[in-house]
Amino acid sequence: MKYFAAPVEKLIEQFERLPGIGYKTAQRLAFFVLGLPNEQAEEFAQAILDAKHTVSTCKICQNLTDHEVCSICSDPARDHTTICVVTDPRDVIALERTREYKGVYHVLHGVISPLNGVGPDQLRIKELLQRVADEEIHEIIMATNPDTEGEATAMYLSRLLKPFGVRITRLAYGVPVGGHLEYADEVTLTRALEGRRDI
Amino acid sequence: MKYFAAPVEKLIEQFERLPGIGYKTAQRLAFFVLGLPNEQAEEFAQAILDAKHTVSTCKICQNLTDHEVCSICSDPARDHTTICVVTDPRDVIALERTREYKGVYHVLHGVISPLNGVGPDQLRIKELLQRVADEEIHEIIMATNPDTEGEATAMYLSRLLKPFGVRITRLAYGVPVGGHLEYADEVTLTRALEGRRDI
Repeated sequence: MKYFAAPVEKLIEQFERLPGIGYKTAQRLAFFVLGLPNEQAEEFAQAILDAKHTVSTCKICQNLTDHEVCSICSDPARDHTTICVVTDPRDVIALERTREYKGVYHVLHGVISPLNGVGPDQLRIKELLQRVADEEIHEIIMATNPDTEGEATAMYLSRLLKPFGVRITRLAYGVPVGGHLEYADEVTLTRALEGRRDI
Repeated sequence: MKYFAAPVEKLIEQFERLPGIGYKTAQRLAFFVLGLPNEQAEEFAQAILDAKHTVSTCKICQNLTDHEVCSICSDPARDHTTICVVTDPRDVIALERTREYKGVYHVLHGVISPLNGVGPDQLRIKELLQRVADEEIHEIIMATNPDTEGEATAMYLSRLLKPFGVRITRLAYGVPVGGHLEYADEVTLTRALEGRRDI
């Protein structure tokens, strides 16, 4: 049963489609937007359109960009012989925040996940192989998530990349900094022990 | 530090302005919108514009509507001599869901809250007084929230409305149906005892 005016219901419906937003929250968001000054609501709508229309993927690393080549790929100060392979544009941000990594990236836009119907063809794997074939690459760091699907994707990719004779590495496993040992799971602790280093 | 393309950052910023949405969630929502097919993203933007441009307040009850007079006020089957005064359009929906109330509404669009700088002039009180003066009203039900500000607003309004000689009532207090006595606070229990009825 609809009690709100049709355009309000429509807006609630649109918000409800967003991930993690239920009907109550969608209602709250819609009413917030209704309460905004006209120009701010228009700015919001415009931001959606702009993002959709001007953002595409970098033709080299497949990260999101509003240029043909993203700012990282076009930066001559970066090490273009090291590629860090990540699942998602957000992972690029997470790694950039460390200010430690100076190489470039390759964004797969997903992981291999047969249960969700995602096979290798839906990911940007072809583009990665092309890069390794065309450019002079020394190292590929697999930085997919440390879960089953991320692992499987990393394994799949390393098998594909082996023939190119390039060094393939994986992020280290271990206890997270600032964490408590008592809360670490057995697998993580086992990996942390296996990977122990001299101090 | 901005790592995403400018239009993406802009969209994240817009989502971040919404109530209860932090940066991480805003990021997730923005990426979801970026992943939508073009026409669905456009539909979302259009829903915002439509809601802002076509929705206004009913000239009688001040509820949100896309017509001059809302569907409840223009319904001849409703009892137009009983007005239920609520804080927010969402409260109208809550009451309509009971399917019990057959009267009409008056939406204040807020409560008197000196701490938040909201005085009686910012609410639709003038319009309520005008209705009571012009129309034949038998009863006004105060259905503001049962909290301090809701109570104060209800008290303030009843004093203003007394001179019109109209019956003024307040929603009953008591234990919520389906609740547990052990979790009910003392004030609610006291009110429930005071308002006890013969069965």
